[in-house]
Amino acid sequence: MAIEFGNRIKGMKGDAMSDLLQLTQQKDIISFAGGMPAPELFPIKELIQVSTQVLAEEGKAALQYSSAEGYIKLKEILADRMNKKTGTKSTANDLLITSGSQQGLDFMAKVFINPGDVILCESPSYLGAINAFAAYEPTFVEVPTDDEGMIISKLEAILSTAKNVKFIYVIPDFQNPTGRTWSASRRQEFMNVVNKYEIPVAEDNPYVELRYEGDPLPTFKSMDSKGLVVYLGTLSKILCPGYRIGWVYAAPEILKHFNTVKQAADLQSSSVAQWDITKYFALHDIDSHIEGLREVYAKRRDLMIEAMENFFPDGVTFTRPKGGLFSWVTLPKGLDAEYLYKEKALPKKVAFVPGSAFSPNGGHENSFRMNFSCMSEDKIVEGIRRLGLAIEEYIIEGK
Amino acid sequence: MAIEFGNRIKGMKGDAMSDLLQLTQQKDIISFAGGMPAPELFPIKELIQVSTQVLAEEGKAALQYSSAEGYIKLKEILADRMNKKTGTKSTANDLLITSGSQQGLDFMAKVFINPGDVILCESPSYLGAINAFAAYEPTFVEVPTDDEGMIISKLEAILSTAKNVKFIYVIPDFQNPTGRTWSASRRQEFMNVVNKYEIPVAEDNPYVELRYEGDPLPTFKSMDSKGLVVYLGTLSKILCPGYRIGWVYAAPEILKHFNTVKQAADLQSSSVAQWDITKYFALHDIDSHIEGLREVYAKRRDLMIEAMENFFPDGVTFTRPKGGLFSWVTLPKGLDAEYLYKEKALPKKVAFVPGSAFSPNGGHENSFRMNFSCMSEDKIVEGIRRLGLAIEEYIIEGK
Repeated sequence: MAIEFGNRIKGMKGDAMSDLLQLTQQKDIISFAGGMPAPELFPIKELIQVSTQVLAEEGKAALQYSSAEGYIKLKEILADRMNKKTGTKSTANDLLITSGSQQGLDFMAKVFINPGDVILCESPSYLGAINAFAAYEPTFVEVPTDDEGMIISKLEAILSTAKNVKFIYVIPDFQNPTGRTWSASRRQEFMNVVNKYEIPVAEDNPYVELRYEGDPLPTFKSMDSKGLVVYLGTLSKILCPGYRIGWVYAAPEILKHFNTVKQAADLQSSSVAQWDITKYFALHDIDSHIEGLREVYAKRRDLMIEAMENFFPDGVTFTRPKGGLFSWVTLPKGLDAEYLYKEKALPKKVAFVPGSAFSPNGGHENSFRMNFSCMSEDKIVEGIRRLGLAIEEYIIEGK
Repeated sequence: MAIEFGNRIKGMKGDAMSDLLQLTQQKDIISFAGGMPAPELFPIKELIQVSTQVLAEEGKAALQYSSAEGYIKLKEILADRMNKKTGTKSTANDLLITSGSQQGLDFMAKVFINPGDVILCESPSYLGAINAFAAYEPTFVEVPTDDEGMIISKLEAILSTAKNVKFIYVIPDFQNPTGRTWSASRRQEFMNVVNKYEIPVAEDNPYVELRYEGDPLPTFKSMDSKGLVVYLGTLSKILCPGYRIGWVYAAPEILKHFNTVKQAADLQSSSVAQWDITKYFALHDIDSHIEGLREVYAKRRDLMIEAMENFFPDGVTFTRPKGGLFSWVTLPKGLDAEYLYKEKALPKKVAFVPGSAFSPNGGHENSFRMNFSCMSEDKIVEGIRRLGLAIEEYIIEGK
């Protein structure tokens, strides 16, 4: 008898893409492929103080098992903060602490999906979410998008015919991979449709506080009168990813299942991490820290956009994100970003993520994702220059 | 339309039991219900040094995203240590770092189980494993056990007839909940059957280093010539649980699926935790730390066993574990440990976990689990005295 694995394993990709992205680890490559925050901006001095104090004063609790739902003091802080910033009325008990918002994505599918059930998502959408969901063997239906978000007529056409739609997955602010932000009017139209069909929504909002221009727009959760929206938050982009601390905010009848699933999955997220972050919030002003991030990231965005304008050939378009970490580049129709990556960009020691990675059903082959948060300014310009040359070569060769 | 959850949610228990165990949180209760290590033995001073040094010297890496598979230096240390202690020949690449061994349990089912597939486990077995597995909708078949482990004739009878057995779950050393340890000869017989049927095994071994008497016995993984055993290790019991760091050690063709599943589930375990623990291993001698734990726990075990001998009425039996954290008490037939808990023990301010919690299909109603690791010596004696009275009352009343 050979060892037999579960069916879900067949639907989980990642190998091909991670092999591809392994190549970006080479030291001399300028990689726009990542999605990492800038490590030189981590508040290391503050975290040394915080972790020392936590261990000295509360070490016995911080190193011990704690509750599956998460450290109550941390949840109070996160709930208060959300309420102040977005007008929600959450309390600590409405939150579950997760190991990054990635775990919130996994739990979303774990709580809602039977094999064959339908998940709607933006096209393109976040690679990691597609992968997390895929473990539960859903059918993905991609909803076409424009610069303002999902195209509502298309969404409604799908909802009025598709069966077993269990939830809609969206990243409303500075989307991964496109960098686009849903407009205010589109948000309202979306919630009207959601309320009409009473479909749960997974609102994944890791970048919401990394806005570099314009005013914040209401989150779906803040517009959620029927308890349909499951909000996924994370500290990975505004503090640091290394602690793996995110949260889920959902209506009690949904959250209770997330809590059960959490306990079964890994008992709880790191106590030490939760205690450290709680102390960080108590002793330091995260808002001024975030202000510092915004300044640096805005500058890098501006520089990358400017360089793309200067170095990319005519016919290549790209988004101009108002926040977040990414821009989305579209090559002229018929060109293939994976070919560009392997045959033209890598030889010039520059990398990105080809667009097909962001689509569960294929597509977006002529697009790719560019990250600007995790690179020095001189490297941004040099990398875009090389990439411009690579695209030019490809276009000329393609003719 | 009402919100519809996945089928798996129906099979996941925990609510009834966690309501029951909530009651043990009351301050004046002497609770033998937990399974926690003693917090007064956490090496807090060392960990302050370690975490300060990690952040000061390697903060940018320790606070950043790192690989899904886990920090290579930590995996080298863990692999070396396993090899030295158990004679395995693992390398860092044979390991995946998980968020506690609980996550390894979740992944075991996630990698192997389709709804309806069969998992074999000891009867009784670990509550948390049953819950983790239940999320993947298996059928549990419990294999009867005696003081030496699974009864092999029963195991073979099941394997020769049952279909779709995907793996066997075992805790060979100081089992949770019984405190029993498989004998050397039973281990060999078990591996013979496993090799004959080529059935994967999940070897969950959190307590193996907490041995208070006798010589270590070979792990199943060290006897595994066919790459069938998935070994789940954890630092929760020998260092502390708060970091949530465990590991999976498996053959490459199995481990690659665990790695894929890990990335989808939460991207990676805490970088900070992995860096801190790596530094702890570099700067401190964990073996002498564990020696200290053994001394204290052995003393508490002795005290609890002695008190049970003194205070428990005739007809009540219990295991005398050679290590680990638990003893398993069996009441005379026909008595119900859950009734004892609610009606007799709680009013006397003493708690334990009723045996039915440890059986996916029911049973063990006249047994319960007692923990001795996480309590001061005077409380152990006083708690057992109260529990003896509670049992006596129940037996008299029952007549």
